[in-house]
Amino acid sequence: MTRQLHLGLFIQETGHHIAGWREPGAAADAARSFRSQVELAQLAEAACFDLVFIQDSYAMRGANDVDALQHSARAIHWDPLTALAALAMVTERIGLIGTATTTYNEPYSVARSFASLDHISAGRAGWNLVTSNNEAEALNFSRDSHAVHSDRYARAAEFLQVVKGLWDTWEDDAFLQNKATGQFFDPGKLHVLDHKGEHFAVKGPLTQARPPQGHPVLVQAGSSAAGKQLGATTADVIFTAQQRLADAQGFYADMKRLAAAAGRDPAQLLIMPGLLPVVAGTQEAAEEKFRQLQALVLPKVGLATLATTLGEVDLSGYDLDGPLPELPPANGPQSRRQLLVDMARRDNLSIRQLYERVVGARGHLTVVGTPAQVADVMQQWLEEGAADGFNIMPAHLPVGLADFTEQVVPELQRRGLFRRRYEGHTLREHLGLARPAHPHGR
Amino acid sequence: MTRQLHLGLFIQETGHHIAGWREPGAAADAARSFRSQVELAQLAEAACFDLVFIQDSYAMRGANDVDALQHSARAIHWDPLTALAALAMVTERIGLIGTATTTYNEPYSVARSFASLDHISAGRAGWNLVTSNNEAEALNFSRDSHAVHSDRYARAAEFLQVVKGLWDTWEDDAFLQNKATGQFFDPGKLHVLDHKGEHFAVKGPLTQARPPQGHPVLVQAGSSAAGKQLGATTADVIFTAQQRLADAQGFYADMKRLAAAAGRDPAQLLIMPGLLPVVAGTQEAAEEKFRQLQALVLPKVGLATLATTLGEVDLSGYDLDGPLPELPPANGPQSRRQLLVDMARRDNLSIRQLYERVVGARGHLTVVGTPAQVADVMQQWLEEGAADGFNIMPAHLPVGLADFTEQVVPELQRRGLFRRRYEGHTLREHLGLARPAHPHGR
Repeated sequence: MTRQLHLGLFIQETGHHIAGWREPGAAADAARSFRSQVELAQLAEAACFDLVFIQDSYAMRGANDVDALQHSARAIHWDPLTALAALAMVTERIGLIGTATTTYNEPYSVARSFASLDHISAGRAGWNLVTSNNEAEALNFSRDSHAVHSDRYARAAEFLQVVKGLWDTWEDDAFLQNKATGQFFDPGKLHVLDHKGEHFAVKGPLTQARPPQGHPVLVQAGSSAAGKQLGATTADVIFTAQQRLADAQGFYADMKRLAAAAGRDPAQLLIMPGLLPVVAGTQEAAEEKFRQLQALVLPKVGLATLATTLGEVDLSGYDLDGPLPELPPANGPQSRRQLLVDMARRDNLSIRQLYERVVGARGHLTVVGTPAQVADVMQQWLEEGAADGFNIMPAHLPVGLADFTEQVVPELQRRGLFRRRYEGHTLREHLGLARPAHPHGR
Repeated sequence: MTRQLHLGLFIQETGHHIAGWREPGAAADAARSFRSQVELAQLAEAACFDLVFIQDSYAMRGANDVDALQHSARAIHWDPLTALAALAMVTERIGLIGTATTTYNEPYSVARSFASLDHISAGRAGWNLVTSNNEAEALNFSRDSHAVHSDRYARAAEFLQVVKGLWDTWEDDAFLQNKATGQFFDPGKLHVLDHKGEHFAVKGPLTQARPPQGHPVLVQAGSSAAGKQLGATTADVIFTAQQRLADAQGFYADMKRLAAAAGRDPAQLLIMPGLLPVVAGTQEAAEEKFRQLQALVLPKVGLATLATTLGEVDLSGYDLDGPLPELPPANGPQSRRQLLVDMARRDNLSIRQLYERVVGARGHLTVVGTPAQVADVMQQWLEEGAADGFNIMPAHLPVGLADFTEQVVPELQRRGLFRRRYEGHTLREHLGLARPAHPHGR
């Protein structure tokens, strides 16, 4: 059988393009009316997507520049865990992945929330582990600044170890519930973690039964050396931003190699780049659609979006039509910043031209074309070792998603590259990932 | 019009009685199968209850005594926020209240989660603010022990102030979403909190629009002097455990007086004691039902439940049929402990007799009788200044709830003491509570 793609819907309330909310078909109230989120998840499920994904930050990005922010829809955003729990009740099969940072949370709470989500959804939960790279978050958590990059990852690795240990508090068959004898659980199948490490001391036990998936699906997106190492060693899925086939192939090969070096089956680590599709019946119509979107971007919003993506750098003193200046060091997302700087140098872009590339997919791949053209790119990346699937990032929602599910998904299905119906029930089953055995399981 | 009762369903997975799960009609898998929680919420909503309530603890109570714990259903429990968000999608009107502690959480996260729940449920969220009194929680949060009682309340008061400030980040009409001009929000209606206090420094702004209710309903249950003061000054609803009419009247009068002294309208502070009803067609049948439940309690489970309720004291060296010894000081829930000690002294109870009173309602009021007898007690407490309503705590679930909704609720409705249909849509509307105006509202 042809190897098939995995598809995620990366939910961003009004759409991923910074001006997407201004499109006539965009649900501009999507961060306040939950109905719109339900519609998105159901649309993605009707198209048999593997998962929906809600990203997160514990601070408002761009809040220092309200003059620009007032023109974008990014100031408000759903809390992933409550939103995904609610979506679990209005969907049946689709996976539900949410971001939670290891920098400002505690492992006990994170373990419990995602275990609960996995139970509520009958095995469809996933956790996107991130370390926080937004300095504004520190100021919402009674701290002056946050840990430097290397410490964040050391904490993250131990955090994850604790969370997994808590998920394994109970063996899968610990609960007997014998009404006649009064035996509720088998005490031999309760395992108290009693973790004492460098960053955390967590005794346990967790007050949730083992999740239906054993462990919810683990996602990571770090692309620095430390991030890649942690992801290759521990993640099930890697979300990544890649612009070019060759770079994506390099990243893909790297991650699979690191996974193998860690003693893992590389096929059990899935690489899913983001993809912003702009689809229409002809290439010209698709390009015109994209031009119209770009024309809705106010320059100050474009500039602010670029500044935020680069790690809150100040570009206000520079000529919009001049080159990107040398940037001072920053504590933010290193790999995304480098990707943008490389692109600007490579393609000799002005600041304006660079922000025009960022306001849509923020550094992810953008494909503008016919359904066949979009499918061609996806097929090539799948077949030539650049991706196991894609996180779809519609420019504006819900219309951009409907364009994709109505036009591109059928094309992928005709090519045998995507499922026509769900075969499994859990997210691990959709993704072809093994269920982790309990360390004490017999 | 007759003043009416407010009714809450205090959800405890298999029921509030420690042996309730052993009853034939109890859903013993209720902490693992979410379907059972949906059934409970829908049953309560069909009976027009004001709210469901899910309590919480960040640790397993009784985990030090696995020999006893293995016989109770208390070891596992739903995470309130994810569970309530899910319940929001399968109910239309009923309020959704969850516990979150100020001891181990951060105000930014709590503000955001409950704002999200209020949006998802279209104005049905409530937050039961507690300070943690379970020392086992500290051990799950990388701490050796937790703050003493007075510090916990100082932190709680400031925590609440921050949360409210974050909820008021946006004025109600801040979002313009003008697609033509590109104006998404009115920057004059964004208010950055910038809180700097003794326990917290939280800048904001919150990434959620103001909750539909302005502020989700605020619940507190502290009965110590510090707890009562905070509740009377800031809460909308007080949950409390009261055994006797006179004590309940004293507590009720106290709280209303403290609220008035703080410059509040005492009618805007609702007092809701817990009530465990055991109902049957005749008093004898009800008493027999209760006897059967009590007979299912294994002595070691009864003793362990008593020890936990008193604050993890060790009673293992004492004669079950002798008196309760003098207890060493404890850092746990002071008022509940005192209530039990008073009851034991007053009624000259042996340890066994005391645990028999605790294994059901844990110190809350238990009423065993016909529907009319249960309604009589509720009516008396309402009319004689002891309660504004009750948190119903069925002994075993779902059967104990159905007994109440099918037998007692119609009796209350006949007497004009309870609604026959919802008139409002939000939890504040059900409870007759004003919606807090925005401090900068015009």
